[in-house]
Amino acid sequence: MKTRIISAICMLPLLILLYLGGYFLAALCIAIGFIGMREFFNGFRHMGINPSDRVGYVMLFILYFINGLWPTHHGLILAWIVAVIMVCSLLMFDSKKHTPMDAMATMVGLIYIVFFSFHVVLIDETGGYSDMKWLVIIAAFGSDIFAYFTGKLLGKHKLCPNLSPHKTIEGLIGGLLGGGICSLLFGFLICPAYIGSCAVIGFFGAGISVLGDLTASAYKRKMGIKDYGNLIPGHGGIMDRFDSVLFTAPFVYYYTAIVMEHFQIIF
Amino acid sequence: MKTRIISAICMLPLLILLYLGGYFLAALCIAIGFIGMREFFNGFRHMGINPSDRVGYVMLFILYFINGLWPTHHGLILAWIVAVIMVCSLLMFDSKKHTPMDAMATMVGLIYIVFFSFHVVLIDETGGYSDMKWLVIIAAFGSDIFAYFTGKLLGKHKLCPNLSPHKTIEGLIGGLLGGGICSLLFGFLICPAYIGSCAVIGFFGAGISVLGDLTASAYKRKMGIKDYGNLIPGHGGIMDRFDSVLFTAPFVYYYTAIVMEHFQIIF
Repeated sequence: MKTRIISAICMLPLLILLYLGGYFLAALCIAIGFIGMREFFNGFRHMGINPSDRVGYVMLFILYFINGLWPTHHGLILAWIVAVIMVCSLLMFDSKKHTPMDAMATMVGLIYIVFFSFHVVLIDETGGYSDMKWLVIIAAFGSDIFAYFTGKLLGKHKLCPNLSPHKTIEGLIGGLLGGGICSLLFGFLICPAYIGSCAVIGFFGAGISVLGDLTASAYKRKMGIKDYGNLIPGHGGIMDRFDSVLFTAPFVYYYTAIVMEHFQIIF
Repeated sequence: MKTRIISAICMLPLLILLYLGGYFLAALCIAIGFIGMREFFNGFRHMGINPSDRVGYVMLFILYFINGLWPTHHGLILAWIVAVIMVCSLLMFDSKKHTPMDAMATMVGLIYIVFFSFHVVLIDETGGYSDMKWLVIIAAFGSDIFAYFTGKLLGKHKLCPNLSPHKTIEGLIGGLLGGGICSLLFGFLICPAYIGSCAVIGFFGAGISVLGDLTASAYKRKMGIKDYGNLIPGHGGIMDRFDSVLFTAPFVYYYTAIVMEHFQIIF
């Protein structure tokens, strides 16, 4: 527990990068995508599946490169996803070295980790709503902390015992409320003009962060590993700490870009 | 050979749907996506991998539904891709029924088959350039036919013997030139204002169609099946006939939407 808290404090400077935004935030997301993908691919190697690190790095670089030149160009990002599928498919042509499983693991690693974490940059680029980037971590970590204490105090009914034995339904409810309350508080202090939207994002984002957590656990379980890495003492790898953020980031982005910006549903 | 030709003639009416565009073309793409995905998933079952048909059908429906309401909304399509990854990840939570492999196969099937074939609809919706949809099949089938005869006449050096034993480098060159020439002819007759762009799309589209063909073969090989189905006598399944189209469709779309429409590079 002590190591966990010290590690958590050591990660606080990352918040400065989130605050600065722009290239600083992009650098942080590149690092998380890079290390997370590496950990994920190494996990697959425990199952005898051999994704291509090289293809992963090149495609990660291309995503941030095109976004640097033409920020938030959705058409180019779609083209990048198509390119990921095509380039990873090329791996299979060397059928002695790579199986379709290797190609598929490379595709999924790129989309699930690199593309998902990239959404924090996209939120930062949404002009008027770039503050919503804070909700990505408020929803994820707010839910995490509230779920932990609610579960500890009231937890009785297991949520998903075969994937995450300590999670309870009571904890989940506490997490949802915690995500909503923390985000409401954030809205009250930072953006009172859309405080209601913040609360909605926080509540549903908290639920989605739990799915992110369980997804990373499900992969880990099948890979036969306990942690994705040992980069952060007491927490495990980048993927162990940021698994929930990976899912909340796209949720917050599309809520902001589609519901709030495109359809102008703001409250 | 006779069955092949009769079958090919029976498929000509599909060209009417391509010509009509709009809902007719969407219906055709839904059918190809639906049957193709089914065949692909059944192939995986030969490897002991069990993708979820139900998730596949629901996500296919959602893609065409949102595109019906808000055509070519790239942000919504990106959100759909994120939703595909998240919803397929939920499958793993029932760890007795589904493994991460099942979830990944469902994701890849949806993106590679449903999303890729959907690009024909997107081209149809590009207002001024909707005629480019013809290049999807001209590049793919033009290259196919030219490659076949060039290979037959001049073929000496094997291209990729472990995946597709009959393909030769001479055939590939014939296919590239054939795709380019057919598309040039199409541009001359239909859209002389951008005849050069047509030839470029045809040439590179022909190359990409070969990658599409080899990709489908690589999956098949690992699945241990000869054909994806027997829907089209002499050709196999939908996936055996449309494997090359799956790759040319997104290429033609992004070339049209990004190079021609966004950057205005037209010649």
